Amino acid sequence: MEYSKDKTPEADDLEALVESGDEGAIRRFLTLLHPADLAILFDTLDRDYWPRVVQFLDTAEISDLMEELHDHLRDDLAELLKPDQLVDVFEEMASDDAADVIADLPDDMAKAVLEGIPDEDRQDVEALLKYEEDTAGGLMQVELVAVPETATVERAVEIARSVSEDVEEFHQVYVIDEGGKLTGTLGLDRLILAKPETLVGDLADRDLYVVHPDDDQEEVARMVKRYDLVSVAVVNAEGALLGRILHDDIVDVLEEEAAEDMLRMAGAEEPELVYTNRVFKIASVRLPWLLATVGGGLVSGVLLWQFKVTFPTLLTLLTFVPVIAAMGGNIGSQSSTIVIRGFATGHIDYNNLGRYLTRELAIGSMMGVVLGAVLGATAQLWHGDPKLAFVVGLSMTLAITASALTGVLVPFFFRVIKVDPAIAAGPLVTTANDVMCLAIYYGMALMIL
Amino acid sequence: MEYSKDKTPEADDLEALVESGDEGAIRRFLTLLHPADLAILFDTLDRDYWPRVVQFLDTAEISDLMEELHDHLRDDLAELLKPDQLVDVFEEMASDDAADVIADLPDDMAKAVLEGIPDEDRQDVEALLKYEEDTAGGLMQVELVAVPETATVERAVEIARSVSEDVEEFHQVYVIDEGGKLTGTLGLDRLILAKPETLVGDLADRDLYVVHPDDDQEEVARMVKRYDLVSVAVVNAEGALLGRILHDDIVDVLEEEAAEDMLRMAGAEEPELVYTNRVFKIASVRLPWLLATVGGGLVSGVLLWQFKVTFPTLLTLLTFVPVIAAMGGNIGSQSSTIVIRGFATGHIDYNNLGRYLTRELAIGSMMGVVLGAVLGATAQLWHGDPKLAFVVGLSMTLAITASALTGVLVPFFFRVIKVDPAIAAGPLVTTANDVMCLAIYYGMALMIL
Repeated sequence: MEYSKDKTPEADDLEALVESGDEGAIRRFLTLLHPADLAILFDTLDRDYWPRVVQFLDTAEISDLMEELHDHLRDDLAELLKPDQLVDVFEEMASDDAADVIADLPDDMAKAVLEGIPDEDRQDVEALLKYEEDTAGGLMQVELVAVPETATVERAVEIARSVSEDVEEFHQVYVIDEGGKLTGTLGLDRLILAKPETLVGDLADRDLYVVHPDDDQEEVARMVKRYDLVSVAVVNAEGALLGRILHDDIVDVLEEEAAEDMLRMAGAEEPELVYTNRVFKIASVRLPWLLATVGGGLVSGVLLWQFKVTFPTLLTLLTFVPVIAAMGGNIGSQSSTIVIRGFATGHIDYNNLGRYLTRELAIGSMMGVVLGAVLGATAQLWHGDPKLAFVVGLSMTLAITASALTGVLVPFFFRVIKVDPAIAAGPLVTTANDVMCLAIYYGMALMIL
Repeated sequence: MEYSKDKTPEADDLEALVESGDEGAIRRFLTLLHPADLAILFDTLDRDYWPRVVQFLDTAEISDLMEELHDHLRDDLAELLKPDQLVDVFEEMASDDAADVIADLPDDMAKAVLEGIPDEDRQDVEALLKYEEDTAGGLMQVELVAVPETATVERAVEIARSVSEDVEEFHQVYVIDEGGKLTGTLGLDRLILAKPETLVGDLADRDLYVVHPDDDQEEVARMVKRYDLVSVAVVNAEGALLGRILHDDIVDVLEEEAAEDMLRMAGAEEPELVYTNRVFKIASVRLPWLLATVGGGLVSGVLLWQFKVTFPTLLTLLTFVPVIAAMGGNIGSQSSTIVIRGFATGHIDYNNLGRYLTRELAIGSMMGVVLGAVLGATAQLWHGDPKLAFVVGLSMTLAITASALTGVLVPFFFRVIKVDPAIAAGPLVTTANDVMCLAIYYGMALMIL
């Protein structure tokens, strides 16, 4: 079967097939689908059809489907299975997938599964369950091919063969010393071309790309990206090989982190909610951010009223409130986005933050002067009051410069206090920025008029 | 050497070493660095030191460095090399990297390089140069291991050996028929375990993951992500194998697309500019967006002035202008972000857009009612005018619902007219949204007061 670009298999087709009762056709339809596509199909398949389709899947297929399904649908699939069958499904999974899925199951179901699977597998899975989901330990799988330094190429192939049933996919073998310490790696593309009697230790690549189980997944992804890796070894503090993280998990991390940052910047949380239909839940996640905006907006309203009270004869001042507030917000979110993105990709860290601060300040003040002049000139043309025009232009320049500064400092501050910096480009900070800009405008007006 | 998480090699160390003149130490320092780290080091290394460091690198090392360097620094490196040496550097590169780098060189330099490299390589590179940079053709490399259906495993290994010097890294061999049509793939992890006399055709995996040269890179990345692939084959309309795209290029695409969307949402363009020090250039990229915001902000100012003219005795209306404008903007950018992200990941397309529109409308109107009630109550408490409170609350509800609607429709509209939907969450549309919300508020006030 050929998969090219986007295939959208139709849940409707399957529902019609099930209705037709043609078992051979249903079976063929399911066999031709990649588990990832079947999972997408299940997402839109009417729930009544789930048991009627699952009965046509074998244990390995259910296992694949379980891995690929969205977190919130896994329980529903698990509930369709008999306890024995559920245990079999988990025995088919790689250790990292099993741990991920078990972590999401209701407690009693998870316990039953853990008790059912063989001792050795259970120990592996329980060890993995101890790591936080967003760490290297949470991503790694224990299935891998490890060969001693002193093995020949021929022996390495034998070792690979003996574990091949458990290791779903491998692109390299890990070379270890007698103590289990990782000493090198050997790509299959080199192994396959070597003479059978060559020692693995003589071929091994000694550049080690390693992470530790508690390392953040974002750091792992950054390493994979920088060094173009297909997998990363996870080692403990003594350098002993614990597991490996494969390319596909890294791709998922990159997507997840990008989505998380982007949604946070818009004041939406928990990306997984985005694609469900739980309208109330989504609204309740977004509302707190919006209420904060309401609060900030009302403070701006109070400030605006202050203008009216302080300068009753100069209500023309009010006409520039929206533009000054909006500009401050925009500049701030430009600067913040660049810093957040820089943190995420590793381009910006504590070492060179000063350089970015200087740069954003330079850009901010430059744009501030240009836009301040534009706005001052507009004010003069509109209201014909040079003093007012001066206040408006100067306030705009200062507001933009200050916003560029806070745009860099706020995400940095969040990072220092260990809050996700992406929040800094979200509605909360943007609203605070608006208030700051209006306060600058009001202050300038007070001083000059 | 062990690479773990983030290593920041210090340009200062290298500069000091060069000053010391200790050639052995400089050579050792450079040998121990991964090309990716050397490229980062060059980024901050004082330009005066470049030629003094490059003289210690051999052709292969310069070639790796050239690939890893930021686009805008490649010319500078190329200019340090003699014409012959530059040609040698390109002969070391994989076809895709060579095409990428040549595309960025000044025309005369690119021409000289193309004329210098051997005929066969030149044809490959020239063919790749014809594809757009952000398509599958722009990402693919022609170096790969292709074996006929009828070859034995032993013969396949021989074929791999014969091309191994040109193929930098391979995880599978491509199986082709006599006409060069791709018929299957065979992972090295399966090849290595098979008996030498087995036919490749009997082992091959017949699930083909293929793209065509003109496919957008985002679609390629989506396919890799969905099916957990380590590489993708590129075929022409007849199914003949043209090249392959490796995992590391896909990781770069994912990063690039996420960064592009995020920066566009903040009104910044061309991600590559972000990490340079060209302050004027960056300011000139951002200024047009900001000028548009100034325009929109002034329109809001005019509307605000209309309130004062139309309701001279009801200036308390003005105190709610900031909050209604800010909320509209926020809700709109939440909805837009979700749609933009959904387009990028393939979760949302024309088929299910209706579902998302309904959902965002439901969420929007729900939040609109809650926040409208909150704001109406606040207005009543603050100014003690029930009619005003009603106008404020109702306007808030309508403004939020309308913003949720435009938040979905505007990115969709941009996609239809083939403009990047990410712009829809940018300053331009946010500003337009603010104006729309104020117009709703003004309209309600006109009708009711």
